[in-house]
Amino acid sequence: MADAPEKEHPVEAYGYAARDSSGHLSPFKFSRRATGEKDVAFNITHCGICHSDLHFIKNEWGIAAYPVVPGHELVGIVTEVGSKVTKYKVGDRVGVGCLVGSCRSCTNCADDLENYCPGLILTYGSKNVDGTRTYGGYSNFMVCDEHFVVRIPDSMPSDGAAPLLCAGVTVYSPLRYYGLDKPGMHLGVVGLGGLGHMAVKFGKAMGLKVTVISTSPGKKSEAMERLGADAFLVSHDPEQMQGAVGTLDGIIDTVSAAHSLLPLVRLAKTNGKVILVGVPEKPFELHSFGIIMGRKMVGGSSIGGLKETQEMINFAAEHNITADIEVIPVDYVNTAMDRLQKADVKYRFVIDIANTLKP
Amino acid sequence: MADAPEKEHPVEAYGYAARDSSGHLSPFKFSRRATGEKDVAFNITHCGICHSDLHFIKNEWGIAAYPVVPGHELVGIVTEVGSKVTKYKVGDRVGVGCLVGSCRSCTNCADDLENYCPGLILTYGSKNVDGTRTYGGYSNFMVCDEHFVVRIPDSMPSDGAAPLLCAGVTVYSPLRYYGLDKPGMHLGVVGLGGLGHMAVKFGKAMGLKVTVISTSPGKKSEAMERLGADAFLVSHDPEQMQGAVGTLDGIIDTVSAAHSLLPLVRLAKTNGKVILVGVPEKPFELHSFGIIMGRKMVGGSSIGGLKETQEMINFAAEHNITADIEVIPVDYVNTAMDRLQKADVKYRFVIDIANTLKP
Repeated sequence: MADAPEKEHPVEAYGYAARDSSGHLSPFKFSRRATGEKDVAFNITHCGICHSDLHFIKNEWGIAAYPVVPGHELVGIVTEVGSKVTKYKVGDRVGVGCLVGSCRSCTNCADDLENYCPGLILTYGSKNVDGTRTYGGYSNFMVCDEHFVVRIPDSMPSDGAAPLLCAGVTVYSPLRYYGLDKPGMHLGVVGLGGLGHMAVKFGKAMGLKVTVISTSPGKKSEAMERLGADAFLVSHDPEQMQGAVGTLDGIIDTVSAAHSLLPLVRLAKTNGKVILVGVPEKPFELHSFGIIMGRKMVGGSSIGGLKETQEMINFAAEHNITADIEVIPVDYVNTAMDRLQKADVKYRFVIDIANTLKP
Repeated sequence: MADAPEKEHPVEAYGYAARDSSGHLSPFKFSRRATGEKDVAFNITHCGICHSDLHFIKNEWGIAAYPVVPGHELVGIVTEVGSKVTKYKVGDRVGVGCLVGSCRSCTNCADDLENYCPGLILTYGSKNVDGTRTYGGYSNFMVCDEHFVVRIPDSMPSDGAAPLLCAGVTVYSPLRYYGLDKPGMHLGVVGLGGLGHMAVKFGKAMGLKVTVISTSPGKKSEAMERLGADAFLVSHDPEQMQGAVGTLDGIIDTVSAAHSLLPLVRLAKTNGKVILVGVPEKPFELHSFGIIMGRKMVGGSSIGGLKETQEMINFAAEHNITADIEVIPVDYVNTAMDRLQKADVKYRFVIDIANTLKP
């Protein structure tokens, strides 16, 4: 029989865990491995709350094995490094995103696409190579192979940096891969939440014209005045949508709620690209005619590889981009989840682990 | 009131037309415009029968205005050219595909993508700029602006060339645009009909490994021995399909019958592309998870521009590629349509207009 989470590794750790599909988070004691020769150990100071944390702890994807310590937007300060670690030293500020491992030998890994490795190990809810479960960042400290650690640039605050590690790279990566990063291009961003607001910021920093497409007319001033979007479309206003048909080079669709794809495809120009980064429960309807006429495509993208995650963080630092956040104490986390469910956050909760998580 | 088809233009013409959604084709007299200064007039010698002809004459897309003279795979011999024609002279062998006009001033036209011009004029069933209807290639002769005419290379037989003008370019164009043309790549071709058999031929000529994916186990020897495909998958054999998961760089899906997209998406590698060129009546189901994991895309493509159509024909000539055809007399056309409905043709009917169509 497997050891209890508290005993399976030598190093005591603590955090917040969900114990069942209620998703209620409560204090939890577990353990982490000793720092291996390629490992970086760090005290977590901040952890972002991603919408997928919410899906996961409620087992909405049907893959949760409890207890679950969520959190894959970790920032902290290095406390120990293994003997073969070359990139980090004690005191460095570092981050870990969605991945803590991959096979390191497949084509995807060789191409710096660890995020598409069939053997990827997620930061929480996965099995480690030793068979133990991975526990995420709603916790006091972390141990991780240095390959899966990124450096937080000095100019960047830890709290605003944390959400870049998932939300940031999730939208940055498709902008680069699908070539939607050329100055002057016109980008649509569907949904103005954690991912969407990052897409607006990166799009503007890349020199794009950015149109936000949202179900909420009330988000117009936010989008344009606070985030700097150039235009705003209310998705259920047929006149506004019709007026924008064929105007977008690409669209980043961040919405996980059920919605229709065809109106978005229609907004795209010839050769336009609609990129999905959210995962609605039910499949989309895809009208062949809609993409054949105009040689359009619907593509997907999932987070990013480690090399690209570092590149994204560096780009963000150069352009003074961080996430817009609401910093919360850890004992507020269940309330935060309730509010997240109602999209009541601008735009990302970040847990102040350093000052509020106690043993 | 508009003139009768026989009287609206100065030049008498004749062919076969459908008069209603029965789709039955019968002899029909109409007229064509006099050769304008940029026009090429030619006697049609051959015309391919495209599956969309069948859809159109039965009004299955709901856009037919009768009478319909179908046919958009025309080959013939130039009989007259206008004073400003520079590319062709009397006696040249030429072809016309799906387009006879476009606005010539939009971005798409400027980019040699007349096929995506919002003002495109189809070879049949469209309105000409003068308001008269366009009539296709099941007829004795054609007049067309030279911009929409391609040259048939000397080495290429007229009958086997005709289907290249629609079926050929429809699969050639996405292979080029989506970058599925690099030697050594592994291409899947779904459906072994008029389009699919051309995709196999072009794929092999580009140096690709080609796997045919079909519902019909009986097509395996055809695909591999006759057409030179490297492998064959029966799409409803779960074991065969499972064994090929993640092996294809791209897929050209030529099937217009309802079918499932997810098994095809699963065959694609990371960054793999599933390209639709057929138009099933009902929308596909697109599972976001399926394309997000592996950064895959589902793209569309519709025929090709004129520059690319000529390029395709030249490429075909260089590689001794023509369509596999069954040449028929024009009075066999209704029987041919019945057989086409049952996919009983290898792989394209071509009407011998020159020898069988009489006034």
